[in-house]
Amino acid sequence: MFQVLSESEKPLAEQVANQIVQLIIDQNLVSGQKLPNEFEIAQSLKVGRGTVREAVKLLVSRNVLEIQRGKGTFVAQRPGISGDPLGFAFIKDKYKLVFDLTQIRLMLEPQIAALAAKNAREEEIERMRELCEEIMKSASQNEAYYDLDVELHTCIAKSTGNLVMPNMIPIIGNAISLFNTFPRNYEKLDAVHIHREIIEAIAAHDEDWAMNAMHRHLLFNKRSLESIEAEYKV
Amino acid sequence: MFQVLSESEKPLAEQVANQIVQLIIDQNLVSGQKLPNEFEIAQSLKVGRGTVREAVKLLVSRNVLEIQRGKGTFVAQRPGISGDPLGFAFIKDKYKLVFDLTQIRLMLEPQIAALAAKNAREEEIERMRELCEEIMKSASQNEAYYDLDVELHTCIAKSTGNLVMPNMIPIIGNAISLFNTFPRNYEKLDAVHIHREIIEAIAAHDEDWAMNAMHRHLLFNKRSLESIEAEYKV
Repeated sequence: MFQVLSESEKPLAEQVANQIVQLIIDQNLVSGQKLPNEFEIAQSLKVGRGTVREAVKLLVSRNVLEIQRGKGTFVAQRPGISGDPLGFAFIKDKYKLVFDLTQIRLMLEPQIAALAAKNAREEEIERMRELCEEIMKSASQNEAYYDLDVELHTCIAKSTGNLVMPNMIPIIGNAISLFNTFPRNYEKLDAVHIHREIIEAIAAHDEDWAMNAMHRHLLFNKRSLESIEAEYKV
Repeated sequence: MFQVLSESEKPLAEQVANQIVQLIIDQNLVSGQKLPNEFEIAQSLKVGRGTVREAVKLLVSRNVLEIQRGKGTFVAQRPGISGDPLGFAFIKDKYKLVFDLTQIRLMLEPQIAALAAKNAREEEIERMRELCEEIMKSASQNEAYYDLDVELHTCIAKSTGNLVMPNMIPIIGNAISLFNTFPRNYEKLDAVHIHREIIEAIAAHDEDWAMNAMHRHLLFNKRSLESIEAEYKV
């Protein structure tokens, strides 16, 4: 239906944007590091400064770069990963979206927990324990802890050693913050204590236990969702 | 580390881009449908046409819109899903990337196949069979069939009824085209016939068989990868 444009047919700013991405990769620039200034980039890529400025705007829009006023242009926190990479904004039925995300988490995360139990290093387990305590504290004070929750699950995914999983969890973990859509306390939907059990299973390097605890955690979420389906289903 | 900007602090073009996304959602515009022209958008959002033009450029860069010269601006094929949403360009070790993607596929796709066996409709199974025949044909002529392969796996994911899975498969299915990185015939890496068995299992609505066949398919890919690790590992 649409014509795929070859690199040389793309607008110049798009081409320069891709060259800047290549520059970040080649120079091993990581999150938070500063990019050479507009003038230097323009010179090294042999294009005008206006084009560089336009390319930088495109890369900010794609979450590759971040501009700090008066300080310069920096590599973004999770370069190349946009806030909504799977286009959830375009899915209208938010109840079904949360349900379907929970279904995917149920398929994936018990196996991730097992792999974490196999591979997690001591300092990673330490960080999981810290996050777990922070979650317990927030929950006991009736505060929301979506961010901590996503961070803990991402930390578990990271400890598997798989490079892609930690990038996926914040996306499918979106289900956690979308619970927000439903006017019931998230705390009531989740068994906070199960997080502690998952971490203990990982710390004991017991793969079956970790898988089982994570499975129970997500199954509980799914059942809670089902119990409110009648109320919020469109 | 970075300051999160509120909507009103973002550059005007970013704000207008987000309003255009909202317009697409509200008016139920789908892939391939034409956007109102620049002038109409400018009027309804009460901004200048230059700002609309800049916002459209940002949305093209984010894969939400596509411009067809002389015809107008259209909603993109998979709106909001960029070509590289998980930032794979920023992962240097491509061998490990392919391996890790295969690990995720092994966790996810056997369960997807089982759910497909449960839920797939007749016309979906018909489409899977067509794709399967096209793959057999390409393979017998020694042609590459990465796109058909990804399309078949996406088709299976779609037939589960889960809204998110078909968006995820083309991303983790990236592993298929990345096999390309390794100078060995992809045909030799994959048992083409197993695709036919997977479809037959889905058509028979046999969840265990579908899960098992998909598992064997991906395990075969993983073993093939491992066998070439020594040659291509950096």
